[in-house]
Amino acid sequence: MKIRVAIVGATGYTGYELIRLLVGHPHVEIVAVMASEGSADQRLEEIHPQLRSLFAATVEAYHPEKIDRARLNLVFTATPDEVSVKIVPELMRAGLKVIDLSGAYRLKDPEQYRRWYGGEHGSPELLRQAVYGLPETNGPAILKATLVANPGCYPTSTLLPLIPILASQWLDPGQAIICDAKSGVSGAGKAVNAANIFMEINESFKPYQVLSHRHTPEIRQELKLDRRQGLLFVPHLLPINRGILSTIYVGLKCPVTHDEVYSNYARYYGDKPFIRLYPRGEMPELKFVNGSNFCDMGWVISEDGRHLVVVAAIDNLMKGAAGQAIQNFNLMYGLPESTGLPLAGGSRGMLLADPR
Amino acid sequence: MKIRVAIVGATGYTGYELIRLLVGHPHVEIVAVMASEGSADQRLEEIHPQLRSLFAATVEAYHPEKIDRARLNLVFTATPDEVSVKIVPELMRAGLKVIDLSGAYRLKDPEQYRRWYGGEHGSPELLRQAVYGLPETNGPAILKATLVANPGCYPTSTLLPLIPILASQWLDPGQAIICDAKSGVSGAGKAVNAANIFMEINESFKPYQVLSHRHTPEIRQELKLDRRQGLLFVPHLLPINRGILSTIYVGLKCPVTHDEVYSNYARYYGDKPFIRLYPRGEMPELKFVNGSNFCDMGWVISEDGRHLVVVAAIDNLMKGAAGQAIQNFNLMYGLPESTGLPLAGGSRGMLLADPR
Amino acid sequence: MKIRVAIVGATGYTGYELIRLLVGHPHVEIVAVMASEGSADQRLEEIHPQLRSLFAATVEAYHPEKIDRARLNLVFTATPDEVSVKIVPELMRAGLKVIDLSGAYRLKDPEQYRRWYGGEHGSPELLRQAVYGLPETNGPAILKATLVANPGCYPTSTLLPLIPILASQWLDPGQAIICDAKSGVSGAGKAVNAANIFMEINESFKPYQVLSHRHTPEIRQELKLDRRQGLLFVPHLLPINRGILSTIYVGLKCPVTHDEVYSNYARYYGDKPFIRLYPRGEMPELKFVNGSNFCDMGWVISEDGRHLVVVAAIDNLMKGAAGQAIQNFNLMYGLPESTGLPLAGGSRGMLLADPR
Amino acid sequence: MKIRVAIVGATGYTGYELIRLLVGHPHVEIVAVMASEGSADQRLEEIHPQLRSLFAATVEAYHPEKIDRARLNLVFTATPDEVSVKIVPELMRAGLKVIDLSGAYRLKDPEQYRRWYGGEHGSPELLRQAVYGLPETNGPAILKATLVANPGCYPTSTLLPLIPILASQWLDPGQAIICDAKSGVSGAGKAVNAANIFMEINESFKPYQVLSHRHTPEIRQELKLDRRQGLLFVPHLLPINRGILSTIYVGLKCPVTHDEVYSNYARYYGDKPFIRLYPRGEMPELKFVNGSNFCDMGWVISEDGRHLVVVAAIDNLMKGAAGQAIQNFNLMYGLPESTGLPLAGGSRGMLLADPR
Repeated sequence: MKIRVAIVGATGYTGYELIRLLVGHPHVEIVAVMASEGSADQRLEEIHPQLRSLFAATVEAYHPEKIDRARLNLVFTATPDEVSVKIVPELMRAGLKVIDLSGAYRLKDPEQYRRWYGGEHGSPELLRQAVYGLPETNGPAILKATLVANPGCYPTSTLLPLIPILASQWLDPGQAIICDAKSGVSGAGKAVNAANIFMEINESFKPYQVLSHRHTPEIRQELKLDRRQGLLFVPHLLPINRGILSTIYVGLKCPVTHDEVYSNYARYYGDKPFIRLYPRGEMPELKFVNGSNFCDMGWVISEDGRHLVVVAAIDNLMKGAAGQAIQNFNLMYGLPESTGLPLAGGSRGMLLADPR
Repeated sequence: MKIRVAIVGATGYTGYELIRLLVGHPHVEIVAVMASEGSADQRLEEIHPQLRSLFAATVEAYHPEKIDRARLNLVFTATPDEVSVKIVPELMRAGLKVIDLSGAYRLKDPEQYRRWYGGEHGSPELLRQAVYGLPETNGPAILKATLVANPGCYPTSTLLPLIPILASQWLDPGQAIICDAKSGVSGAGKAVNAANIFMEINESFKPYQVLSHRHTPEIRQELKLDRRQGLLFVPHLLPINRGILSTIYVGLKCPVTHDEVYSNYARYYGDKPFIRLYPRGEMPELKFVNGSNFCDMGWVISEDGRHLVVVAAIDNLMKGAAGQAIQNFNLMYGLPESTGLPLAGGSRGMLLADPR
Repeated sequence: MKIRVAIVGATGYTGYELIRLLVGHPHVEIVAVMASEGSADQRLEEIHPQLRSLFAATVEAYHPEKIDRARLNLVFTATPDEVSVKIVPELMRAGLKVIDLSGAYRLKDPEQYRRWYGGEHGSPELLRQAVYGLPETNGPAILKATLVANPGCYPTSTLLPLIPILASQWLDPGQAIICDAKSGVSGAGKAVNAANIFMEINESFKPYQVLSHRHTPEIRQELKLDRRQGLLFVPHLLPINRGILSTIYVGLKCPVTHDEVYSNYARYYGDKPFIRLYPRGEMPELKFVNGSNFCDMGWVISEDGRHLVVVAAIDNLMKGAAGQAIQNFNLMYGLPESTGLPLAGGSRGMLLADPR
Repeated sequence: MKIRVAIVGATGYTGYELIRLLVGHPHVEIVAVMASEGSADQRLEEIHPQLRSLFAATVEAYHPEKIDRARLNLVFTATPDEVSVKIVPELMRAGLKVIDLSGAYRLKDPEQYRRWYGGEHGSPELLRQAVYGLPETNGPAILKATLVANPGCYPTSTLLPLIPILASQWLDPGQAIICDAKSGVSGAGKAVNAANIFMEINESFKPYQVLSHRHTPEIRQELKLDRRQGLLFVPHLLPINRGILSTIYVGLKCPVTHDEVYSNYARYYGDKPFIRLYPRGEMPELKFVNGSNFCDMGWVISEDGRHLVVVAAIDNLMKGAAGQAIQNFNLMYGLPESTGLPLAGGSRGMLLADPR
C-alpha cells in the first residue's frame, strides 16, 4: 500500500523537485498539491510545464479542513518560514507526519528564533519536538520522528564536513572556523525582486549577509559550539542555477595527514550512500553532484599539517532540500535510504535513474 | 534475462548519457564500456566523476576480437563518423545488433555521403540496410532492424514538426522552407579546440556553417524533398549546455487555422509518448524539455493564414541522441517505448524518474 | 561651449549607458539626471554603483517646471512609451531638442500606434514631426530635427541589412521576408517580473511574441513595404546580457553573387563609421560587437543564388539604444558621428576608448 | 611626441586589452604587435575581430633584431613566464624599458622562483632589479623603474586590502590569514585544453590548486610575512568571463570598528584614483568593477570585533593585468595615473570613457 502524501508549497522550485521525485517514488501516492490562495485552481502544468502530459493535478488552496488523516499520511511543507509556523501545528493536530523544508523548526531555542527570524515562534513546544533531519548523523531520531525539520542548504554543506572533525577533537579553539560558501541562485527560490533579475546576477558574483546569515545559528547549534568558539560564515551568490560549494578552513591543535582525515570521515560515513570522499589530489566540483543527492567532500592539509581545508559540494535543491526530504521520508518509513532518489549527478546536471 | 550491451565511445557526453540511462534500464546489463586506445584502462569514474561509487567499470580499448555474440547482444556506437564507418561492419559480421549514433549510416546515397562527409563510404551496402531511427515515423522498420542509424539532433528537431505538414500537402513549393536552429554546446561534443573554450562562447552567440551543415541532406532525404524545393538550414550556437530549439517557417498553399494544424499533428503523434503539442498562445522553451526525451512543439499562423511558424524544442543529448537511441532500443526489443527513459524534463534541466 | 543635456529615465540600463557615454563626451555637460518620483532624491551611485567616485549627482523627480531653455539645450528621454507620450510635448513646448529612446514617436500612423501600443496617441502631430533616427539612412533629416525618435533595437538590426537590398529591387515579392532575431536580456530593461528572474532565463532559450511584436510595424514602415509583402518577425530571448543577432532570409527575383551584395552594401554604407561588412566565409558574432556602436553584417547565398541569408549583429544597448542616440546627437550638432563613442567592441564585451 | 611601444604577446586576452587601451591612449604610438612564430603574419583583425576597421596591423614574429631603441621606447611583454625569462633580457640589453605582465620577474628570491615556476631563472640579477608594479604602494620605485614586474591578478586583489591592515599591526599572528579567491575564466588565458572547454566550466564551480597556487609566494613576499605566519590561499573558478573577488579573513589582536578600518584604508588610499572604499553595509560585486581599473573594497567585523572580513573586487584583465600595466606606464612617464584608462566599470561590464 502506498503512503499518501501532500505537498504544500507546490509552486516553488523546491515544491517542483519534491513532486518530480515523489512521482517516481515506488511507495508514494501524491494525493494533493497545495499552495496559497493566489496560485489555487491552476493546473500544475501551467506552473511547471515540464510536467505537461506526465502528472495532472490542480493546485488546491491550503486549508486546514482539507487535512484529514483518512486522506493523508504525511505532508511536505515547502512553504515560507512564517507559513510553516502557522500550518505545521494544524497538520500535527490532524495526526499527520510532517517534513518541513522551511527554517521554522530548525532552531531549538525560541530566543534564537526570535533573534534570527523575527517575532515570537507560535509553537515553541514544537521546536523541542522537531527532529533535525540530517540523516547521516541523526538517523535513529528521524526514524521515530513525527515532525522533521529538514536542514538548510548551507548547514547541510557545512555540517557534514565539520561534524566528524569536531568529534575528533582536532580543532584549535583559538582559531575561528571559516565557512566560505557559494550558492547557485535557486537557493533564493522564486523571489521576484530587483536583485533577482537576470541582468543583476549574470556574469557577476557577490557576497551577501556577511556574518549575518540566519543559517549561522543553525550551524552553531548542530555543531554544539561553545559560545567562545569563533565561526565566520560568509555566503556568496554564484551566477548559476544549482549547487552549493563550501570551502571550510579549520585550524588544528596538532598536525594531521590526509589519510587520518580520510579514516576519520570513513568512520562516520563509510556506510552512508550519499557521502563520497575524494582521494588525495582530487576535489569536488558542482558539476559532479548537481542533479544528485550526494555530498562530495575533498580536502587539503597545509604543509605544516596545522590547517585543514575541506571542500564540500551538494545540489542545493537535492541534498540541500527536496532530496534530503525524501531521504528523511524513507528513514521515517523504514525504506532504503535511496528509494526514489536518482543516484547520480550526471553530465552537467542530469540525473541517473535509480538502478533498482 | 537482461539484454547484454556494450557502449563504444564511452568517454564523450553522449557516451555518458547512454551509460547513465542504461544503468537505470531494467532490462539491460552493461557488459563493456569501450573507447579508443588513448582512453583505455582508465576507470570510468576518472572520466565521469558523477559515476563515482555508482557504476564501476574500466574502459576497454575497442578491438573486434572483444566483440562476441556469446558475450553481447547489441552495441551502441557513440563514435566519430569515420570510426563508425570502420567498426559497424565488424560488429554486424559478429552477428550483433547495432545502434549507431554517428552520422555514418544516415544518408542512403553514397554520393551524398561522399559530398558531405568526405571520402568513400566503405560499406555502401550498409547504407541501404540501415534503418533511420526516428521512432515516431519509422517504428515498424525499427522493430525489425539490425542496424539503426540514430538521427542527428538537428534533423530530429526539424523532421518531427515538418513531416506531418508535408504529408498534408500544405506546402507552397514556391517558397523555401526555413529552418533557423539554435543549439547548446554539447551538440559539438568534447572537442578541444580554440573555438570551443569557455571565453569564446560565453555571453556570445553566432551562426555557423550557414547553408552548409551536413545535417541538411539528412533533412532533405527524410522529408523526401523534390530537388527544386528550397530548404534553408542555418544552425546557431547558444551559450548554454543543452537543448535545440528550431524555428521553422513554412509558406502555405492555402490558409490554415491553429486547430487544423493541431488536428494534423494529433493524427500523426496522438499516441506517441514523447511528443507534446502546445495549445494556442503557448510556445516551447528549452527549460521545459531539457533532461527529458520530449519533443515539444508550438506554432503560430500569420494573420493571412498563409505562413506557419512552428517551434520545436528537444534536449539534444536525449531526444537528439542518447534518449532516442534508448527509445529505438526499446522498439527493437518489443519493450514499451519509454522504458528506462526519465519521463520529464525538470526544473531547469533536471530529470523526472520513470514512474514505473 | 558645452551642450547642456538632461537624461530623463536615468535609473534604467539605457539611462545608465547614456550617462556613461555622455560623461565621456567632450562637448556635453550633464545638467540633470531625472526619473520618476519613486527614484527621486537618491544619489546616482546608489542606483549605479559603477559610478561611485566618478560622477556625483542626485536623481531629480521630473517636473515640467524644471525644464528651462536657460538651463538646458537637449533632453534624452529613456522613459517608458506612455511617459514619453506625456513629457515630450512639454519638453518641446519649452523650446528644447529631444531624443526619445522609447517607442512613442517611431510610428507615423496614429492608427498603427493605437493598434500596437494601445490607446490614443496624445500628440499625433508630433508623430509627423518626429524624425526617425537611423543615422545611416536618414542623416540629412536628423541634422535638422528637433525631435528624434531613436529606433528600436530589433528594427536597427533588421533595417540596416534590408534597406539596401530592397532598394536594389532584388526581392522576390512572392516570398515572405523572414527575420529571426535573438536578443540578450537587457533589451527588456529592468522589468521586475516572474519571467525575468535569473532561474527562468539562465540555461534556457525561447521565442516570444511570435508574429506579434510591436517592432514589426516599425520595420514595415521604414522598409516602406507594400501591404501584400509578407514579413515574418520572430524574436527570441538569449540567456546573455547584451546583443542582438538577426538572421534574415530573403528570396530573390534573380541570382546574385557575394560580390554583388558586397558592392550594393558598400554603395550605401561605404563611408559610414559604424557599419562593418564581412568578407566571404566570415560571419558576425555577438562578442565582436558587444560594447561597441557597430552593426556588423555578413551573408551567404544559396547554391542556386536565389536566396540570401544576411546576419546582422549589434549591441542592443549601444547601436540599439544609447550609442545610436549619441550618434544622432552628434549629427544634430554637426559633430563627427563617432564623437564620444567608443569605437570598438572589445574582448568579451569591453569597450575601446575613442582614439581621438 | 608620442611614446613608441610594442606589445609582445598580442594574440592573448591580455594582449588584446593592452592594444585596446593603448590605441586610445593619447601619448602612445603602437609601433609593433608581436607574437610567436605560429601567429605571425596574420592580420590583427583575424585574431581580434573587434578591431576590424579600427586598428590595422600585421602580427610580427618576435625577434631580438627587431628591437631597436631608434624604433621603440618601451615594450609590454604579455608572454608566458618562460618566454619572458628569455626575451626581457634581450629587450633590456637593447636599452628599452619593459613592463612584463608574466610571473617571471615578480619573485625576488631565485630559490622561490625555482620552487614555484620550475627550473633556474636565467637572469637572477633582473629579479633584483625588477620593480614590483603595484602603483598604490610602490609608486616612487615605479617612477624610476626600467623593468616593472606587473603583479598577478590574485595578488593585486589580496595585497591591496591586506597591506594597510598588516601595516597597522592589527593582525593576531596566532591565526592564519585566509584568502578565499574566486576568478573568472579569462584569468587562465586562451589555453586550449580539456578543462577549459565550455561544457566543463559552464554552470559549475570548483576550487583548484588548493594551497599550492604560485601566486601564494608572491603574496607572502609583498606582505613581508614572517615564515611562521599562516596564509591559506585557495583560488576558485567562476563560470564567468571576467573579474576576481577575494574574501579575506583576518584574526585581530584587539577589537576594531568599521570606522577605524575605514580611516586606516583612507590613510593609505585616500588620494589613489583606482581604490574605492565602501560604506558600512555595502559590499563590492564584480559587476561594479568589471570593465574598469578599480579595486573596490568593503568589510564587515565580527560581533566581538576580533575578526575582519574584507572583500576586494577587481577586473582581472584590467586592474589585474592590462589596466594596471597602463597605470604603471603612466607613472613611469610622469603622466596622470589614469591617462588612457576608462574610469568606470559600467553596466554589466561596460567601460566609462575617460572624461578628459
